[in-house]
Formats: sequence, structure tokens, C-alpha cells
Amino acid sequence: MTPSVGTEFLSELVGTAILILLGGGVVATAILTRSKGLGGGWLLITVGWGLAVFAGVSVSYASGAHLNPAVTVGLLVAGKFTQGIGVALLYIIAQLLGAMIGAFLVWLTFKKHFDEETESGTILGVFSTGPEIRSYGWNLVTEIVGTFVLVFTVIAFTNGKTPAELGAIPVAFIVVAIGASLGGPTGYAINPARDLGPRIVHAVLPIPHKGTSDWSYAWVPIVGPLVGGALAGALSYPLLPILAG
Amino acid sequence: MTPSVGTEFLSELVGTAILILLGGGVVATAILTRSKGLGGGWLLITVGWGLAVFAGVSVSYASGAHLNPAVTVGLLVAGKFTQGIGVALLYIIAQLLGAMIGAFLVWLTFKKHFDEETESGTILGVFSTGPEIRSYGWNLVTEIVGTFVLVFTVIAFTNGKTPAELGAIPVAFIVVAIGASLGGPTGYAINPARDLGPRIVHAVLPIPHKGTSDWSYAWVPIVGPLVGGALAGALSYPLLPILAG
Amino acid sequence: MTPSVGTEFLSELVGTAILILLGGGVVATAILTRSKGLGGGWLLITVGWGLAVFAGVSVSYASGAHLNPAVTVGLLVAGKFTQGIGVALLYIIAQLLGAMIGAFLVWLTFKKHFDEETESGTILGVFSTGPEIRSYGWNLVTEIVGTFVLVFTVIAFTNGKTPAELGAIPVAFIVVAIGASLGGPTGYAINPARDLGPRIVHAVLPIPHKGTSDWSYAWVPIVGPLVGGALAGALSYPLLPILAG
Amino acid sequence: MTPSVGTEFLSELVGTAILILLGGGVVATAILTRSKGLGGGWLLITVGWGLAVFAGVSVSYASGAHLNPAVTVGLLVAGKFTQGIGVALLYIIAQLLGAMIGAFLVWLTFKKHFDEETESGTILGVFSTGPEIRSYGWNLVTEIVGTFVLVFTVIAFTNGKTPAELGAIPVAFIVVAIGASLGGPTGYAINPARDLGPRIVHAVLPIPHKGTSDWSYAWVPIVGPLVGGALAGALSYPLLPILAG
Repeated sequence: MTPSVGTEFLSELVGTAILILLGGGVVATAILTRSKGLGGGWLLITVGWGLAVFAGVSVSYASGAHLNPAVTVGLLVAGKFTQGIGVALLYIIAQLLGAMIGAFLVWLTFKKHFDEETESGTILGVFSTGPEIRSYGWNLVTEIVGTFVLVFTVIAFTNGKTPAELGAIPVAFIVVAIGASLGGPTGYAINPARDLGPRIVHAVLPIPHKGTSDWSYAWVPIVGPLVGGALAGALSYPLLPILAG
Repeated sequence: MTPSVGTEFLSELVGTAILILLGGGVVATAILTRSKGLGGGWLLITVGWGLAVFAGVSVSYASGAHLNPAVTVGLLVAGKFTQGIGVALLYIIAQLLGAMIGAFLVWLTFKKHFDEETESGTILGVFSTGPEIRSYGWNLVTEIVGTFVLVFTVIAFTNGKTPAELGAIPVAFIVVAIGASLGGPTGYAINPARDLGPRIVHAVLPIPHKGTSDWSYAWVPIVGPLVGGALAGALSYPLLPILAG
Repeated sequence: MTPSVGTEFLSELVGTAILILLGGGVVATAILTRSKGLGGGWLLITVGWGLAVFAGVSVSYASGAHLNPAVTVGLLVAGKFTQGIGVALLYIIAQLLGAMIGAFLVWLTFKKHFDEETESGTILGVFSTGPEIRSYGWNLVTEIVGTFVLVFTVIAFTNGKTPAELGAIPVAFIVVAIGASLGGPTGYAINPARDLGPRIVHAVLPIPHKGTSDWSYAWVPIVGPLVGGALAGALSYPLLPILAG
Repeated sequence: MTPSVGTEFLSELVGTAILILLGGGVVATAILTRSKGLGGGWLLITVGWGLAVFAGVSVSYASGAHLNPAVTVGLLVAGKFTQGIGVALLYIIAQLLGAMIGAFLVWLTFKKHFDEETESGTILGVFSTGPEIRSYGWNLVTEIVGTFVLVFTVIAFTNGKTPAELGAIPVAFIVVAIGASLGGPTGYAINPARDLGPRIVHAVLPIPHKGTSDWSYAWVPIVGPLVGGALAGALSYPLLPILAG
């Protein structure tokens, strides 16, 4: 039984909100001043983001739990999303709105810690990604590679398997893998909604020392993931025989 | 075959005792003086609490493994717990008693380390939660958000899935996620029994340098989780179509 | 089809050898001089021991994968091991021999690092457990509590569940939990073979700075786990209704 | 339905490329200058390699996901790979080519960080393994033991189990276990393609401070894993009754 488009919209919105609440939250826990998890390190952050995906997927099975425009675009290109471009756009709008709601909830949850934080780079880091070495071209490459791995494995998971083999755990594992392995240079947005939504919220919220929202970088974590996702979708055609194994 | 109320009472009591023994234990291992795990960090603590839930759930399937008054209240509000308010109260009493037994066993297990510990804040931290930045209103918000995520995903797990998909692992993952992502400000009680039971035990036990039991904060990790759980139960009605996906 | 006693003996021996090779190995990786994992911390050690159990169980399904005299005794007391005391003793002998083989392989694998290690306590720590605060009575309590949790949850896993729910992963999770939560005081032997077998090997091997094998403590990680396991087996009778849930 | 040899070739190539992209990537994230994960530690590296195997296996079910000449040789010796030595050689060539592609993608993903890295040992460490204490004989022993555990448990996983019990998660767990427990001395190649492929790429790529590719050690992570894998395959005959349990 196919759910209605309204249900799918709500599902993507709620799932992405949970994803960003927990994903932004683990960064806040690991880096905001006076957090109990301060200094928790890269493994805490990558495991946290993976579990954030696990939680988000767990509450949005109705829509297929894309939670990410790059996944929607990748599945569209791969011919695995058959509701057309119009519904795909609705998915993406829901994802962006959900990401904004999630980022807002992170702010509420860590309100006093944001108020006491004096490093503007730390504050922005809870919301959006940024490169360690700024180089738009190479930063783009990093985001393309990371998102390619995400969407390519997601297509493999959903290809010729029984429903029991699908679900939130394999996707969570892949997201931990990408963060642990490919997150070093740019902080792995691998999801345009995950980066843009919170960046808008960062620009709007009244946080004492927040500083710039770094809009000059904002296009990289949008374009890179969309290209990487589309590439994975396209490559799934010649590679279908191995993915259907 | 529905188990008797007595079996359910015992199940909640034993499960919560195991939960708090392992949950309090991981904090003791990570922070008590001369522990082998001293300095283990936030990931050790959050993974440990998640596995504590895994163990507790594994031994209390007979009662549905609530182990948490906020879960019981949330399922009651959601219409998923149909035995009525009287049995719900019995569940909560069992959880509180179990939590006290668990905290007592932590003390026995770490007896010599408690005796040698001189920091009263560290001792209380093994038993109960406390905020890094004290602000009752915002601390309450943090506990409401964390418990909402817990109960909302638990309802999603138990909704329209086959029994094989349920179980202790997804719940453990969610608890690690909440700790890693939302635990930074208050130490994530997200469970009134988990906080109040051990706090009572802390007040009673003869620990050399134990100091205050901080009763002025004790209401926050009771009220916050109950509100968050009830909110999740209430929101499950409009969101049922996506959770049943 | 029940396997022969000879097959069961071999199964326990091989499984325990793999368990101790990986379990001793993770301690060696985390603490021996010039190891790449030096300073890896308590989470590395506890996750490593959990995965060591996972690997050991994976290769010894034929015998039920006890790998631990405390499990054998606990299941015997619980009435879940029906081959009698004679076969139980064979299991225990196989476990002890397997543990000695595993410890010997750890030595081979880390040969040059043992040769260069100058701290005798570090060397013994790769083989056997020891308390941070020596107090035979309380150390015994710690080992009893830890082993009780292990055997109690193992009985729960094997009780009224379908075979598909059993297996190596839940047991591995419990072992990580016990290490993370209850391992701080004594280093969690929770298995007489795991401690005694490698201690004998330590006494025999020609390691330059090995020092004492600390035989005065050796009875604690034998008696404690056996008492804890038997207690869990005994308590399973009154608690059967909740464990069979 | 058996896939064609061409599909199998592609499957091994793509799977090994993903494996090495993520496996090399986690080392890059943990040790390259200015990476966000710098100092992430041994647990990050071992978990990352385990998840790299998880991802690689997930996209190469068509060929059985060997991704490792030592696995191919071990299964051949064990009589579990029945397509003959010719196809086995094609598997190994695909694995080597895939590993080279993966290493090249790591370089692209971390291009700016490689450019700024000044320690030649760190650069080589992202590509290939090396011992902490150089001793060809004992380094060989370490690689033999580690690979034996890998191939022996893989044979156990694929022996007498239903398909639903197989898959990427158990193998990933074993790889984390081997890294955490046996990786301290040599950095656990346990896979000739994983070491040789990236070493060739290291020799070829124009990285500013790359230094030597350490060819004098290169034979150890080839011979050790092949011997360990063959040994596991041979030992599976007498141990079949316990592995089929």
C-alpha cells in the first residue's frame, strides 16, 4: 500500500528533523564549552551521526527514509524512485524543512552552552560543515566521493534483497564508515539539506558570539553531494549485475 | 499468553536493576579514582549505558521491558499500554525499586573505590545526573527533548513491525544516540527511576566523602522525562501513518 | 543431531583458544610498549574482548560455545546442560587447554614487543587479571556480580527464543557491557579458564622482564566466577517466567 | 544462478576498491596533518577498517565478496571455491586492481592534506602497513596468525548456515576484532592486495614528501596472509564437525 504524498512529505520532514537533532547534537556534545562530552573526539562524532541516521530512518519508513536530497536524486537517476520529479522536489523541501527544525531543536537543547560559547567557529561547526583546508575544487571532490559511497551502497542495499535485509542498521554503519574514513577534510556533509538547513537557522538565531555563517562555502556541500548521488545512480546501471547479487 | 501482573512487576524490577547496575557501573568505571577505566570518556559512558539497556531489555521481555516510567507513561498516552493506570503505577514502583537495587549493587561492586574517592561530585555522578550549567528551565527542556526522542522511536519500533524486527538492539542504539547527541548539558537522565532511585540510595549509603544528594535538582529528571514521554505518546496519534510505515 | 563428546571437547578448545588469542591480544595491543594501539584505552579493550567472544562463539556452535567454566556450571545448575557432570568437567578441561593455547599464540604474535617490555605488571596484565585495589573479599564480590550478569543474560538468551535470535552478537554485546560497566575494579575475569590458563602460560614462558605470576590472587578469578555463575543458574528457577517471556 | 566470470571480476574489483577507499581513508583521517579526525586513535582505525569491509562486502555479493587473495586461497584450499585456480587468479587480479583504484581515490579525497603532510612515514602509513619493530620472521608470524583467524572464521560463517545468517556484519566484526587484538605489531595487512596495491600507487603518485615505499618489507604482508589463509583452509578439514555446528 503506497502512502499518500502528504504522508511521505511528513515522513521525510520528521525523519530529517530527528537526524539533524541527533547529528547536530553529537557535534554540540563533543565541542561546545562545558558540555559533558567535550573532547569526545572523532569516533564519538562519527558514531553519533551514524546513530542519528539510524534514528531518523527508524521513524520514516513510510517515505523510504531518504532524508537527503542526494539520496533522492541518486534513486531518481537510478530509476529506483518512480514517483517523478515533482514528488522528488517535495521530498527535498521536506528534508530541508526537517533539517531546519532539527537544528532549531539542537539550539534549544544546548541553549545555555551556546550562550556561553565564545568561539564563533565552534558555534557554526554545530550547524554546518566547513573544510580544514579551504580549496573549493578539492573540497568538492571530497564531498562527491563521500556521497557516491553513501548512495551507491544504499542502492546496493535496496537491490534484489528481501525486505528483512533492509533497514536502518546497514545505512547507519555506512554513515559511520564515511565519517570515519572520508570525513577528515570537509566534515562530510554528504547531504545538501543537512548543511543548508542548519546554516539558514544559524544565520537567523540570536546566538551571542555566532559570527559569520560562511555562505561562500555553502554551495560546496550542496553541489558535491548532488553530483556524487547522481553519479552513483548513473553507475548503478552498468554495475547492476553485481549489486543485485 | 499475557503474563500475570506479578510476573510483570518482577520483570520490570529485575530489568531495571540490571539496567542501573550496568549504567551506574559504566560511570563508576569511567570516573571513580583508581578504576581501570578512569578517563574512558564520553563514548565509553554512552556505549555503556546503551548496552545496559540492551542487557536490561534482554531479561525483561515478559513485561515489555519498559524499565522507565517515561516509557510507561508514553505508551499509556499513546494507547499502546492497555492494562490501565493501576498496572502502570505498579510498573513504575517496580522500576523505582529495581533502580535502587541496581544502584546498591554498583556500590558493592566498586566498594573500595567509593571508599577511596574524595570528590563528592564524582561520587554523586555515579548515582544520579546533574547539569553542567544549572538552569532549571533549560535543563528541563534538554530532558524533555531527549526523552521525546527515546519514547517516539520506541513507539515507532513497536508499531506495525513483525516481532523479529523488535528487540533489545534497536533500543540500545537509540539510547547510545541520545547520550552521544543530547547528553552534553544534563547527563541525560531521560528516565525518572534511573535518577530518583539511585539518588535515594546515595542519600542512605555510608560512603566516606559522599556530600550532598542535590535534592534541589532532583525534580528536573523526574518532570522532564515524564513530559517528554507523554508528548511523544500524544504526537504518535497524528504521526501514526508514518510510524506504521 | 547431537555432536559426539569428542567434537564438543574440540569445539570448546578451539573456541576458547580463539577467545583468548583475541582477548589477550587486545590487551597486548593496548598496553605493550611500541604497539600501534598503545594507549587505546578502556573502550578499545572492552570492545576487543566482546569481539573476541564473538569470534570464539562463531567457531564453536557444535558444543554450545560455553568457553567459560562459569557458564558451564551455571547452565548445569539451571538444568540447561543435561549431559551430566562428567561431560561438564571435560568442557572445563577443554576450556583451560584452549585458554593456554590462546595465551601462547598471543605471545608468538607479540614476541618482539614482549621482549622489549620492561614493566612486569604490564606483561602479566596481558595474560591474567589483577585488582586495582587489592581486597580479596571485595574483589570476589566484583567478580561474582560480573559473572552473575553474564550467565543470567546468557540463560535469558537461550530461553524460549527461536534459534535465529541466538548467536554470537548478543553475547558479545553483554561481554562489552560487563567490561565497560563492571570491569573497573578487577579487570573482569568472569571466567576461570580465561584467567588461570594464561597465568600458567605466563609462569612457564621465557619473557625477559616478566616478574611474578601473582599466584596469591589467582583463586579470586576462579572462585568468584564459579559462584556468580552458579548463583545465576540457581536464580533462573524462580525467575523463569520473566526469562521465558 | 551463478554469475559470469566477468561479473565476478567486476564485483571483486568494485568491492575491493570500496574497501581500500574507506580503509585507507580512515588511516588518512586519523593521521594526516590538519585532518578533522587527527589523533582519533586505534579504535577509530580498527572500527573504520571493519566498516570498510562491511561496505565492500555489501556491494560485491555477486562474487562472494572475497576482496582478499588470502580469502580466495583459503577457500580454494578448503574446497569451498570450486571454480578452479584460473578463476581464483582472476579474482586476485581484480582485487589488486581494485585496491589500486581505492588507494588512488583516497589520494584524491585527501589531496590537500597529502600536499601539506611533511612526514614521509605518515604518508606511507595511509597506503601500506609496516611493523613497529622490524623483524621479518616475527612480523610474518603476526600476519599469519591474524589472517588465520580471519579466514578460519569466514569459513565457519559460510559453513552449514542459512543464507540469512551470512552477510557483511559478522565479517566486519571479525575484522575489527583482528585489528583491535592482533594489529599492534604490524598494522594487520591480513590481505596481500590491501598492502601491495596501495604500495604500488604510493610509488607512482606525485606526493611532495612521500619518501620510500619500503619495498624491502613488501613481501611480508603478501606471504604472511597467503600462508595464514592456506593454513585456515587446510585446518578446516579436521575441524569441519565443529564449524558445521
